[in-house]
Amino acid sequence: MSDTLFSKIIRREIPADIVFEDDEVLAFRDINPQAPTHVLFIPKRAIATLDDATDNDQALLGRLMLAAARWAREQGLAERGYRVVMNCRDDGGQSVHHIHLHLLAGRRMTWPPG
Amino acid sequence: MSDTLFSKIIRREIPADIVFEDDEVLAFRDINPQAPTHVLFIPKRAIATLDDATDNDQALLGRLMLAAARWAREQGLAERGYRVVMNCRDDGGQSVHHIHLHLLAGRRMTWPPG
Repeated sequence: MSDTLFSKIIRREIPADIVFEDDEVLAFRDINPQAPTHVLFIPKRAIATLDDATDNDQALLGRLMLAAARWAREQGLAERGYRVVMNCRDDGGQSVHHIHLHLLAGRRMTWPPG
Repeated sequence: MSDTLFSKIIRREIPADIVFEDDEVLAFRDINPQAPTHVLFIPKRAIATLDDATDNDQALLGRLMLAAARWAREQGLAERGYRVVMNCRDDGGQSVHHIHLHLLAGRRMTWPPG
């Protein structure tokens, strides 16, 4: 597993605008936000891409989704709604090979999703 | 829990182009595809929105993600990559109130994701 920008954020070697942390998940604002609220939820245990996730990662993937939903609720974003997105490899537009769930909120998202 | 279009698809009361099924998950092609491959992965147990998911749904949410990843791999879509998307309520663009994970593949997805 190669070290990524996100590993450095987890280790506090690179600054980030962290909005949530627990023992398994870290969340911080995207440096190029695409919506009024744009936060990345990442597992502290690195998985390069969604295609690399195994059955052992099932709970962790569910936890990422729930962490995003819970944080959105706490921020008062859930009633209007939001979009969560995970990109896998080049066609998906994945830029950092450490899985991350994008949460976008605060505007009406359009279709198609990119 | 009100009955949705997706409940009817699960009960085979409405036809759909089903591509995958197991005891907990059903997957079928989107009727308005936004990419060469556009499939919806839904839990058979209805949850209206991601905001309605509870800690008890953690495993099921993970299973949806893994089902999409596994199916993409089996279809030969994983090497080039794909995007998965879940919309919550109006700002997210959620049209059916039974959670569904969109899998989009077969073209280079753009940014922002809608």
